[in-house]
Amino acid sequence: MKTATAIANPNIAFIKYWGDKDPDLRIPANGSISMNLGDLHTVTEVIFDANLERDELILDGRVPGEMAIERVTRFLDHVRLLAGISDFARVTSENNFPIGSGIASSASAFAALSLASATAAGMKLDESSLSRLARRGSGSACRSVPGGFVEWQAGEEDANSFAYSIFPPDHWELIDCIAIVSQEHKETGSQDGHLLAETSLLQEVRVADASRRLDLCRQAILNRDFEAFAEVVELDSNLMHAVMMTSQPKLLYWQPTTLAVIQAVGEWRKNGTPVCFTIDAGPNVHVITPGENSPRVIGDLIQIPGVSKVLVSRPGAAVRLVGD
Amino acid sequence: MKTATAIANPNIAFIKYWGDKDPDLRIPANGSISMNLGDLHTVTEVIFDANLERDELILDGRVPGEMAIERVTRFLDHVRLLAGISDFARVTSENNFPIGSGIASSASAFAALSLASATAAGMKLDESSLSRLARRGSGSACRSVPGGFVEWQAGEEDANSFAYSIFPPDHWELIDCIAIVSQEHKETGSQDGHLLAETSLLQEVRVADASRRLDLCRQAILNRDFEAFAEVVELDSNLMHAVMMTSQPKLLYWQPTTLAVIQAVGEWRKNGTPVCFTIDAGPNVHVITPGENSPRVIGDLIQIPGVSKVLVSRPGAAVRLVGD
Repeated sequence: MKTATAIANPNIAFIKYWGDKDPDLRIPANGSISMNLGDLHTVTEVIFDANLERDELILDGRVPGEMAIERVTRFLDHVRLLAGISDFARVTSENNFPIGSGIASSASAFAALSLASATAAGMKLDESSLSRLARRGSGSACRSVPGGFVEWQAGEEDANSFAYSIFPPDHWELIDCIAIVSQEHKETGSQDGHLLAETSLLQEVRVADASRRLDLCRQAILNRDFEAFAEVVELDSNLMHAVMMTSQPKLLYWQPTTLAVIQAVGEWRKNGTPVCFTIDAGPNVHVITPGENSPRVIGDLIQIPGVSKVLVSRPGAAVRLVGD
Repeated sequence: MKTATAIANPNIAFIKYWGDKDPDLRIPANGSISMNLGDLHTVTEVIFDANLERDELILDGRVPGEMAIERVTRFLDHVRLLAGISDFARVTSENNFPIGSGIASSASAFAALSLASATAAGMKLDESSLSRLARRGSGSACRSVPGGFVEWQAGEEDANSFAYSIFPPDHWELIDCIAIVSQEHKETGSQDGHLLAETSLLQEVRVADASRRLDLCRQAILNRDFEAFAEVVELDSNLMHAVMMTSQPKLLYWQPTTLAVIQAVGEWRKNGTPVCFTIDAGPNVHVITPGENSPRVIGDLIQIPGVSKVLVSRPGAAVRLVGD
């Protein structure tokens, strides 16, 4: 039996990934920038075992549905191909945060699974190869492989579509205060949503303008210029949701409380607090603020009716093995 | 003293007007389609009086702010120029619905003012000339001049930018059930908003696609095809709000309750009720449904927390004189 355990953080995208050039290989329509969320994690143990007759998956203590298992098997088939092995695996994965509601659980899940399964299969992959591998499981998972502030270069094919760190976690103490609006599993998962992106007539111009926004965001992080950061991050989030709500069928991930948080954040910034929002494919609102403001922002967020709790995270590290 | 009184209905746009080719003349970036709202109205009396030293305005029983008076004076200056008169006017205007919160009060106001002031000034204008005149007061006012279902052809200059009826009021008994979310005066009036349209990178493609949406909407009304109507109306509304929320500065007119209504409407349609939403530059939601469904839709809307009341209207007639 060959085994390894890895831990990975989810990430929050400041410049969003939405839509693919190649859905099978998950080559994205545009590059993206994110920050790993160090206080949230997925821990995944992989055991390749010659006695198994199929892959097995335990997710947060339970056997998940067939679709989740098939997705993991499809991923592990690729790992087995790379490693030249044939054993099935027992995969046990635990999250310390709610899955399926706009916090990218698939990102940390496939980043951890990539490192754990590659290691258990006897491979030692460099960071970009590991990022490319994770991308096949879930696009945004490639960004959870490197540490800190990360850019995913879109690339044109498997070989050049991977993520790398642009700044280490301690470059800027940005805190992600995640206002949890709903823990219901969302109706349209982001994998299906990506396929709808090109049905919106707004997607083309969103993609065409992406390199400008990437430059603005990278520069704002480099300079720790919160004002510039907030402008481009909120614009980029609204552009993605504009595409979503004009695709066919329409995707509207926002809940009433989502909007209440957006508006509160707008008021706070107008009143001088450096704070901005960004929203993934779900109703929760990621409220970003430099460290010194986070206690007040968290306290104010939790008082908004409909916000059930606030998850808090500092910038996080790269995917790593546990228990070596 | 020369006097006349006119009554006009506001209108709800199914294909929206947002942004101008020429802001001074209010030549719109794209054509639009609307329905007059027969149960809501503005009644406006105009008296040209040689004894006045400036224009006077009484709006819903009160003297409004200087900006409103200046806007009316600028409009009346144009009427005086056309009519070859120089007297100032006393304008008294009454609405039977709340102004300034997403129900187009400026549309019915300037449609009524156009007919009343032109008549009081001794002019007899044909419908397209009256529509062009109303357009100078407020773009969407040109659509409140003709009756029923109305199309505003964008045109390129003053002479060819006006609205005309495409179907009479009794062509299709669509009911507009307006869920009133807030009666607060909005922060950014639509006149200022139009100027921001081109700061969104999404405006160009919204405008470029408009003739396709106009065709779909006109055809759906012609065929009384609610399914096709709902699709294009909601898409068009979302496209406008996508432009708004990605302009610089961003405009987000939606309130939490706005979203609760959008989602309820989506559920009802999924469950078989022919119903759709459209939202102007404000938080209220116009919920459109064929007549037979309106009692149930109204009853369901008023039960949504945050909806303070529901205004209801059938299709309305053209602007007309009162008390002839």
